[in-house]
Amino acid sequence: MSDLPGQISVREVGPRDGLQNEDPVPTDAKIELINRLSATGVGRIEAVSFVRPEAIPQMADAAEVWQRISKAPSVRYSALVPNLRGAGRALDSGLTEIEAVVSASDTHNRKNVNRGTEESLDDIAVIIDQAHQRGATCQVIVSTAWGCPYEGDVPVSRVVRVAGRAVADGADSISFGDTTGMATPRRVRELVGEFRLAYSGVPLNLHFHNTRGTGLANVLTALELGVADFDASVGGLGGCPYAPGATGNIATEELVYMVEDMGVATGIDLAAMIDAAADAEQIIGRQLPSQVLRAGPRTRTIPA
Amino acid sequence: MSDLPGQISVREVGPRDGLQNEDPVPTDAKIELINRLSATGVGRIEAVSFVRPEAIPQMADAAEVWQRISKAPSVRYSALVPNLRGAGRALDSGLTEIEAVVSASDTHNRKNVNRGTEESLDDIAVIIDQAHQRGATCQVIVSTAWGCPYEGDVPVSRVVRVAGRAVADGADSISFGDTTGMATPRRVRELVGEFRLAYSGVPLNLHFHNTRGTGLANVLTALELGVADFDASVGGLGGCPYAPGATGNIATEELVYMVEDMGVATGIDLAAMIDAAADAEQIIGRQLPSQVLRAGPRTRTIPA
Repeated sequence: MSDLPGQISVREVGPRDGLQNEDPVPTDAKIELINRLSATGVGRIEAVSFVRPEAIPQMADAAEVWQRISKAPSVRYSALVPNLRGAGRALDSGLTEIEAVVSASDTHNRKNVNRGTEESLDDIAVIIDQAHQRGATCQVIVSTAWGCPYEGDVPVSRVVRVAGRAVADGADSISFGDTTGMATPRRVRELVGEFRLAYSGVPLNLHFHNTRGTGLANVLTALELGVADFDASVGGLGGCPYAPGATGNIATEELVYMVEDMGVATGIDLAAMIDAAADAEQIIGRQLPSQVLRAGPRTRTIPA
Repeated sequence: MSDLPGQISVREVGPRDGLQNEDPVPTDAKIELINRLSATGVGRIEAVSFVRPEAIPQMADAAEVWQRISKAPSVRYSALVPNLRGAGRALDSGLTEIEAVVSASDTHNRKNVNRGTEESLDDIAVIIDQAHQRGATCQVIVSTAWGCPYEGDVPVSRVVRVAGRAVADGADSISFGDTTGMATPRRVRELVGEFRLAYSGVPLNLHFHNTRGTGLANVLTALELGVADFDASVGGLGGCPYAPGATGNIATEELVYMVEDMGVATGIDLAAMIDAAADAEQIIGRQLPSQVLRAGPRTRTIPA
């Protein structure tokens, strides 16, 4: 295990990706959650997305949330944008890190943003330019990177080609999203391997779901491949829109629990993250899937 | 991943370890579940335990269950025994594989069977002899192998010493049990490494819980170390007696889903195991923690 990265950078996506897939919550609760997360030691937070309020009412208050949160100097905040209009709003709001998203699978992209993968990539080239012109960075998220809920398998070559187009257009980094939890250790190895062969110098972030239980096994595989940037969601906030009752994002505190035990630093205070997960559970009003939230860290003993 | 075992042997522990930690279910339902599991292609089933009915009413019907199940020629059935009396009952019932259990942690052993680890090991030496005299094999399960809910960490050297005593006394194989889900990839690597150094020729089975989310990551690590015998529980049946609401055993269908995708054969029909998990959920009357049961295999698509 000596080849593992000494530290990783975790991006907390609960406030955006998590809450976007839950029933809407009050603006104040979002702000409070983000502020709590900012105090856990996490290095990155995906705070909001600038999407059409009619399409995603959960994020209708994005500009207000962004304005009112306490921005910790140690945290890099980002916003997801689905299109040019969203990018403009994010940059106008003062974001300096945005994420543009495109699905590797054409069907999923059409369902999501009503256009094909290539059309989205054309838009993303413009978004990247706009971000750079305004001094911001732009990560391109390639979703359905390990499979599409409509099409099934998506060829690795296609995923790498989509990412490569974004790289050629100036993306500052790539994130592969396991949108519906179809990644497995073998497939992580394949995609990361192929991407690295073609684009060894490009920063790579991975976004796993635990929809089929392999979330942390996928992280472990990626760590062994030297990947050091991961998304996770406090408490496992989010769920999966394609499988009612199924789990979505890997839980941040589970990720921290596992990798810190392996000597991989996250900068995150596990107890503080578990507390934040308990808060998230209160906000949402349902039990979140995080196991570490239920059982506590392994050092929690009971009186004999 | 070419160093992974080409195939593994899964022991389905749902009928025993799973049901023992749930509210009691009718004898007929147990028999029906075991019969269904026997038809999934699984190679081993831990069917019952011979324990004091006053202590564990869930297993009071062990002899009847064992007598009435349809024994498939392709399946090796086993019973867990906590002491000499239980071993006698199991052997009298015609079992040819028994599992004797001892906790690496003294406190846990006392809580479990009201005596210290060394006293249990003395008994186990006699149990092994009795099994061998009657043509049966005896596996020794070392529980709390990755930590104790009362004592916390259990030194690797102690766990290996307990296992070594059983090996010296003639145990046919060793199983390390992660009783309360305290194993992590790093700790799996440490314990398996130390055990193999000392007892390279002794068959080793591993029993993981998913109480803190790392169950499949632990399996992945063990596979990379060449371990090929694993316990799992259909649907994740079982729960954790030490953390209300927390997950216990790893789910058999999640294990099968992950390793088969890696080219590691289990002999198990995934669809049949998922069906058995759905049955187990009916029997128990609560949602089981298996993610693959909720979301289905990755090849399950939805109409566009």
